[in-house]
Amino acid sequence: MPVSVNPLTKESFDIPEILDDSESIHGFLENNSGKKIIVVQGLGFVGAVMSLVCANAVTEEYAVIGIDLANEESYWKIKSINNGFFPLVADDPKINEFFKNTRKKNNFLATYDPQAYKYADVVIVDINLDVQKESSDENILRRFDVDLSGFNFAIETIGQHCRENVFILVETTVPPGTCENIVKPIIESHFTQRGLALNQYRLGHSYERVMPGPAYVDSIREYPRVYSGINKVSADKTESFLKTIIDTSKCELTRLEHTNATEIAKVLENSYRAMNISFVIEWSRFAEEADVDLYAIINAIRARDTHANLMYPGIGVGGYCLTKDPLLASWARQHFFGSDSDLGMSVNSVSSNDQMPIFAFKRLIKVFGSVKGKKIAFLGVSYRGDVGDTRFTPVKTLVDLVQDSGADVILHDPLVSYWHEKQCDVESSLDAVLDSTPDLIVISAGHSDYKKEVTLKRFMKIDPAEIFDTIGLFNEKQLLRLKSKHKVSVLGRGDIN
Amino acid sequence: MPVSVNPLTKESFDIPEILDDSESIHGFLENNSGKKIIVVQGLGFVGAVMSLVCANAVTEEYAVIGIDLANEESYWKIKSINNGFFPLVADDPKINEFFKNTRKKNNFLATYDPQAYKYADVVIVDINLDVQKESSDENILRRFDVDLSGFNFAIETIGQHCRENVFILVETTVPPGTCENIVKPIIESHFTQRGLALNQYRLGHSYERVMPGPAYVDSIREYPRVYSGINKVSADKTESFLKTIIDTSKCELTRLEHTNATEIAKVLENSYRAMNISFVIEWSRFAEEADVDLYAIINAIRARDTHANLMYPGIGVGGYCLTKDPLLASWARQHFFGSDSDLGMSVNSVSSNDQMPIFAFKRLIKVFGSVKGKKIAFLGVSYRGDVGDTRFTPVKTLVDLVQDSGADVILHDPLVSYWHEKQCDVESSLDAVLDSTPDLIVISAGHSDYKKEVTLKRFMKIDPAEIFDTIGLFNEKQLLRLKSKHKVSVLGRGDIN
Repeated sequence: MPVSVNPLTKESFDIPEILDDSESIHGFLENNSGKKIIVVQGLGFVGAVMSLVCANAVTEEYAVIGIDLANEESYWKIKSINNGFFPLVADDPKINEFFKNTRKKNNFLATYDPQAYKYADVVIVDINLDVQKESSDENILRRFDVDLSGFNFAIETIGQHCRENVFILVETTVPPGTCENIVKPIIESHFTQRGLALNQYRLGHSYERVMPGPAYVDSIREYPRVYSGINKVSADKTESFLKTIIDTSKCELTRLEHTNATEIAKVLENSYRAMNISFVIEWSRFAEEADVDLYAIINAIRARDTHANLMYPGIGVGGYCLTKDPLLASWARQHFFGSDSDLGMSVNSVSSNDQMPIFAFKRLIKVFGSVKGKKIAFLGVSYRGDVGDTRFTPVKTLVDLVQDSGADVILHDPLVSYWHEKQCDVESSLDAVLDSTPDLIVISAGHSDYKKEVTLKRFMKIDPAEIFDTIGLFNEKQLLRLKSKHKVSVLGRGDIN
Repeated sequence: MPVSVNPLTKESFDIPEILDDSESIHGFLENNSGKKIIVVQGLGFVGAVMSLVCANAVTEEYAVIGIDLANEESYWKIKSINNGFFPLVADDPKINEFFKNTRKKNNFLATYDPQAYKYADVVIVDINLDVQKESSDENILRRFDVDLSGFNFAIETIGQHCRENVFILVETTVPPGTCENIVKPIIESHFTQRGLALNQYRLGHSYERVMPGPAYVDSIREYPRVYSGINKVSADKTESFLKTIIDTSKCELTRLEHTNATEIAKVLENSYRAMNISFVIEWSRFAEEADVDLYAIINAIRARDTHANLMYPGIGVGGYCLTKDPLLASWARQHFFGSDSDLGMSVNSVSSNDQMPIFAFKRLIKVFGSVKGKKIAFLGVSYRGDVGDTRFTPVKTLVDLVQDSGADVILHDPLVSYWHEKQCDVESSLDAVLDSTPDLIVISAGHSDYKKEVTLKRFMKIDPAEIFDTIGLFNEKQLLRLKSKHKVSVLGRGDIN
């Protein structure tokens, strides 16, 4: 019997063969009679927390059913939620607080049974929509494609079960044009088959700006939102719904004229960021060649308001969004809008960003020599500081390269105990890692723990070692201290010692 | 006899054959005895105003000599200054105020005589350093080169005449590495020939962030500055000098470790901006294809602090800096630092930006049809709103394209009476332009005059016409009004009517 394993606890769950969870659904509905029902489709990094936000809405008492698939990847999340354990490790105390609240109120159920859509006043689509990248050995983007079959299947499931007057809110980052070209036709085709009216349902798009980390919940609940609907009544419905879950005393809602517009806005936001990161890559190499400190230069430039968003150099771009959203946009431009042109600059920026860990590796070899036979400790494996998310982390590429060159690797991360993509455990004790006397310490994620004075003192106590800071963790003063004992090099800082 | 003509007044001056202006220099020095002498090399958009700032320094009484070449291009500026007319038209009242002050104090002389360098305590280098672009017919960058001969000649002139203990401050935007690889060797070679010590002179680099327009003077005097020296004493000297002319109670000075670092900072700043503009170009085309309003999308995104610098679409990038600085950087990376790589993304952004007016032209044709035989009015020929500077204005490309397609063109600009690069006069009366009943009005620069209610009312009074707004001059409300009478299209706003 296939099982789904909780990577955090290693607990194993038998995956049910028949998708019938009606008993718990009915019990849940009885307990929550009179409340409006929100079904959140997808219990990942967005859907799980969106469920909490809906179950702790600002102006309304909702009952929330989170749906995910009964498969190896997701079934443990359903069990975990229903057993009282939230399936994400996060720095944000509000996650626990909100989750406890739902336990107390009994207004959050997780299930795999698509019958739940029947009862939904609101369905929120929070599933993944991935890009298939064809990369070379060195992780450089060559070609890519967007496979919508999983997304289409999820929308089909909604169309097969949902009520005639359902409100569907798409939050998933989609290729622009998707609500109009995919979601609407699928829903309406099922409604026509089912003999339902086509003017009763509402379809809106409002993208999340979730930032996993210490303000995880507030990045949904108190952060400005852009929204639209496929028509005016849908846009109105989207607005009134968002006002019940978002604290609009703390942030604004902005309506755009069309779902195409909000869908473009989302991928443009992330492409802008990906682009600005990729822009600094070249300058980082240039700064190293010219033997100057790009961090100091960027600080001097950021003094100007108009240049305050200039990015710093680093090990690379990771995470679920910036590594694919520019590609979704370019794909949509050609596939939904029939353009002869792609969004070449945005696509190239993804390709450039994918190469950053390779540059980091080359720099490492240049400054510290061959890694063969060396023991190398990596501090931080997540894609970004203070986040326990390893999806598409650039650290993986660097670790792979170093291992392939014959180094022995020790991994540390305070927020990641099991590295899903590398299928290996990660050490959580910094002492254990440093006591193992690595030859080279690579600072590879900017976790707050690493920035603490106590950590710096700990670094000063170890035997002379080599330290390669790929993310600019240390300030000038700290660098001076470290350099008094160790050989230290910082990516983008030239070789100044 | 060759002459130099003031394009503003059409006054013509005979260019002297012998570069002897010793009489006026000596008279000037007598009048200013006891004061330190600053010689500003170059009386262009930076040097002319820098001269005023030095002659009205914050903490010291300087006597300032501005030097430029006795040629067709520049000689009239020298004559104009000495005759009491500042050679730049600018919106900033401080320009006139500061210039009048220098007349009253008699502490600003312009000359063409290189003997002036002999008397300089400080020489400020504010000459041009151009990039030679090889463009196709359609203005797309193909190849480029940097010819340093003019710059080298200017530095040679300083080295031939200046004092042993001179302080040379380079403000010109140079390929990074220039102070170390060009300026220092040239000066030291002349000093060696002249038997002077090499440890008495000081050489600093501090780039300007001049913004012609209503805050022209303050963009020098009250704006944060980055500086460096070829060694510590030079950096100290640069700092103490800058403190005498810059109001450091209102802005910070930031020292960087090396002239390479400040030189990189300058071109990085401008490349960042050029890059972000070029990034929006593709999205502007995409928005038009998807028939959505990119302005509304960008406004929604800019609500985020991290995205507040996202640029708006437009007719294109012009001006002296953004059209070449990324190229200077890339050139220097290869020529001074021996890199195999260029700064490809920055170079491509210049190429992309150069194409913007071509896109604007294509859009014009698509929306309004053929321009053949039409009378087309362009409002604004400068490269940017509220600036009388036409250097590398993208409007030129669009006007050229429209003329080549058989349109009859009328030009208007409140700040440009003569368009140097097109060698033609520009109408300053908006009434005259509108009374000529153009078929199509192109808004091509965002001058404040055009944004006034009175102008909008004027637009509403003309016969139904076509209006093509290439820069997003009008807000939504104004657009609605205009569209009630005219056919209006905005670049980047789709075809929404």
